[in-house]
Amino acid sequence: MAEPLPDLIQEIVSQESAEDPAMLETNLASQDDVAVATILESLPVEHRLRVWQEVPRERKLDVLVEMRSDPREILIDATEHDEWVALFSGIEAEDLLELMDSLPNRLVDLAYAELDAQQQGFFRDATQFDDDEVGHWLNHGFLVLPLNAKVRDGLRLIRRNVPSHCDTIFLVNRSGHFSAAVRLTRIFGSPEHVPLVELIEESMPVLKGNDESTNASLQVQRSGYASLPVVDENNKLLGRLDITSASELINEFYERQVMATAGMDEDEDLFSPVAKSAKNRAVWLGINLLTAFMASWFIGLFEATLQQVVALAVLMPIVASMGGIAGSQTLTLIVRGLALGQVNNANFKALMAKELKVGALNGVIWAIIIGLIAYFWFTDILLGVVICLAILFNIVAAALAGVFLPMILDKLKIDPALSGSVILTTVTDIVGFVAFLGLGTLFLL
Amino acid sequence: MAEPLPDLIQEIVSQESAEDPAMLETNLASQDDVAVATILESLPVEHRLRVWQEVPRERKLDVLVEMRSDPREILIDATEHDEWVALFSGIEAEDLLELMDSLPNRLVDLAYAELDAQQQGFFRDATQFDDDEVGHWLNHGFLVLPLNAKVRDGLRLIRRNVPSHCDTIFLVNRSGHFSAAVRLTRIFGSPEHVPLVELIEESMPVLKGNDESTNASLQVQRSGYASLPVVDENNKLLGRLDITSASELINEFYERQVMATAGMDEDEDLFSPVAKSAKNRAVWLGINLLTAFMASWFIGLFEATLQQVVALAVLMPIVASMGGIAGSQTLTLIVRGLALGQVNNANFKALMAKELKVGALNGVIWAIIIGLIAYFWFTDILLGVVICLAILFNIVAAALAGVFLPMILDKLKIDPALSGSVILTTVTDIVGFVAFLGLGTLFLL
Repeated sequence: MAEPLPDLIQEIVSQESAEDPAMLETNLASQDDVAVATILESLPVEHRLRVWQEVPRERKLDVLVEMRSDPREILIDATEHDEWVALFSGIEAEDLLELMDSLPNRLVDLAYAELDAQQQGFFRDATQFDDDEVGHWLNHGFLVLPLNAKVRDGLRLIRRNVPSHCDTIFLVNRSGHFSAAVRLTRIFGSPEHVPLVELIEESMPVLKGNDESTNASLQVQRSGYASLPVVDENNKLLGRLDITSASELINEFYERQVMATAGMDEDEDLFSPVAKSAKNRAVWLGINLLTAFMASWFIGLFEATLQQVVALAVLMPIVASMGGIAGSQTLTLIVRGLALGQVNNANFKALMAKELKVGALNGVIWAIIIGLIAYFWFTDILLGVVICLAILFNIVAAALAGVFLPMILDKLKIDPALSGSVILTTVTDIVGFVAFLGLGTLFLL
Repeated sequence: MAEPLPDLIQEIVSQESAEDPAMLETNLASQDDVAVATILESLPVEHRLRVWQEVPRERKLDVLVEMRSDPREILIDATEHDEWVALFSGIEAEDLLELMDSLPNRLVDLAYAELDAQQQGFFRDATQFDDDEVGHWLNHGFLVLPLNAKVRDGLRLIRRNVPSHCDTIFLVNRSGHFSAAVRLTRIFGSPEHVPLVELIEESMPVLKGNDESTNASLQVQRSGYASLPVVDENNKLLGRLDITSASELINEFYERQVMATAGMDEDEDLFSPVAKSAKNRAVWLGINLLTAFMASWFIGLFEATLQQVVALAVLMPIVASMGGIAGSQTLTLIVRGLALGQVNNANFKALMAKELKVGALNGVIWAIIIGLIAYFWFTDILLGVVICLAILFNIVAAALAGVFLPMILDKLKIDPALSGSVILTTVTDIVGFVAFLGLGTLFLL
């Protein structure tokens, strides 16, 4: 039984294992490649490098494949050039495709030279496709027979070797064009002389090499098959997308969304070097600073008002932040809908109408509550009216922005999960400050 | 070839299909259950109800199973009591487990009565486990043989029927305790008289019924098997977790994280009724209002200062927002690490040290930039110094809060993905305002 990861990480960091390398070796041996990758990602750099030395050479490549790019690059940089020849022996196209973005060009060339002719072909084919297309992530281990094959041919093929996550045999015509697929389980139950074409799956989806990878992965996941065939524009069979690759692509898609909300990417390393980490995050801080100065500039327009009614300065963050929260709720819902293919031009108007109504309802309720609190706090009825109107206005504007913004960004091919929230907050800040201070200037001076 | 979903949704909303119900029927027939569920979720309520009428009765239950709870409940409410008897005929325990939270109790009872004795047993067993435990999500369709079975027994079993996503036969002892598993593909290649125990998988992981479901699902996903066996505390075989269920559980986990950042849950309906939607979101707005008033109260302490130095009011949102962004970056990284099991007591101190260094570095850089801008804007060197110090202080405090907060929430069993960001922003707002206005009072009056 493998030891739980947190305990193992604890032992490594607390240096117990440094005094007992044999124990570390045993512990690593009981963990699968993903677990070892997770352990390495969880360790501060000096421990990570030490443990990396203890990973048996024959596992190192498989472990690297399972890691995120940023923590992986630290290990790649720490690996001697001479060691790579040994590490790359037996490498397959799939591994190299996964690693290539983290490897310097000379190492990609070195690894490519280690591939046999067939694997080199697979590698070249895959790099014809972008990494957000299915063609980049193909599994080339599949079972294939000519269209006129019989159950007995199928049984012979199955007895030889079945790749993992493979539950169908593909039938192709003489030019290698995909025709249909037969489930292995239908073959077992049928007499030997039956032609396979009589057993084909009628409604199995077929993917295209340039299909977008997240959507294609979701199709695999829900198809009930262990993999789906992938063809080129001429229907030539390229390979298959299996459910393991599909699940990994979906995980990455979601992780990208989660990290994007803070302006980071899914490869961010827990323990990346301080300078690199600061640099990664600086862009986002810089963009935010620009928008914050824009908001300040608008506040600055009302300096005279603020000087006379200091309560406005005290309350103005409330107006901005209520708009920000309301807007981000709408935005998050629409961004998810876009990602799932549930939001488009067809239901845009209906969504707009619904979100405006929700905004108006919540706007009225919170405007009244906040207006009353402000009135009692500063015993100024006009101030209560001003903040009440400003809140209502800002929450409704936030709903509008929350629907429009992601739709526009999506049309411009900008990821709304990444840039949506920062633009939205700029809008709700500026609208909030201008509405509140503007109304304040009108009513309170 | 099925029509792309956006086109279909467009046709439905534009009423084309209302005039031509036959076309709608054909279109629905060409879509799988998940696609029909997606279409229904994408439609405003009046269209959703109309299309629901056109879904053939025998598909309705399967479509409901694929939907999220909130949009599903609208359809459940719209279904006549008499129709349920027909809908529930042939229902299985798995479907009822998926639907039970959306169904009123009397319908759960009705459906339960439709289950046969075996399925009722499965249902009762599953409800012994919470819905975040593997035992709740078991697949009971598996291949099982006694420990002393031979390859020929295996072949006979396979020929009869293999459930989908099943690539192993489980071997159990006489008391039904799980012993080992054999891959189907190893059976094909072996002579008939070989005992199956000679072909067993040495390192296949075995899950426990009360294992946490997301972790267990990740184990299935990376195991290379189509499913893993699940046993109770006495090693009795309960069922298996297959890769489809595992992938769905992982998708839900991630979707929960994405929606939690805006205080919503993953079942939120694009087109929920306005009142319900406003209510769902009101809690989050209310919590935010409390924290916003706290921040305002702290600003209020410095009314006298603000009155004299109005530039402080103009610039104070910058201090708060830079801290908020820096903190949310750290928070997002730590929350992901916690979810992936990469952050724990063992590496907490090292993480703290790294994030503090990143915070200090970014803090110094941005503090100087912002200080210079403020100085040139207001031609006041002391104001520049004050904002410079406040920014530095707030970004470092944000790093501290970004590491500590999720760790504490996690220990308290509160989901840091949900409540982390709102608490963090409260901290960075208050620290930012107090530091900036406090330093302003010291230096500028």
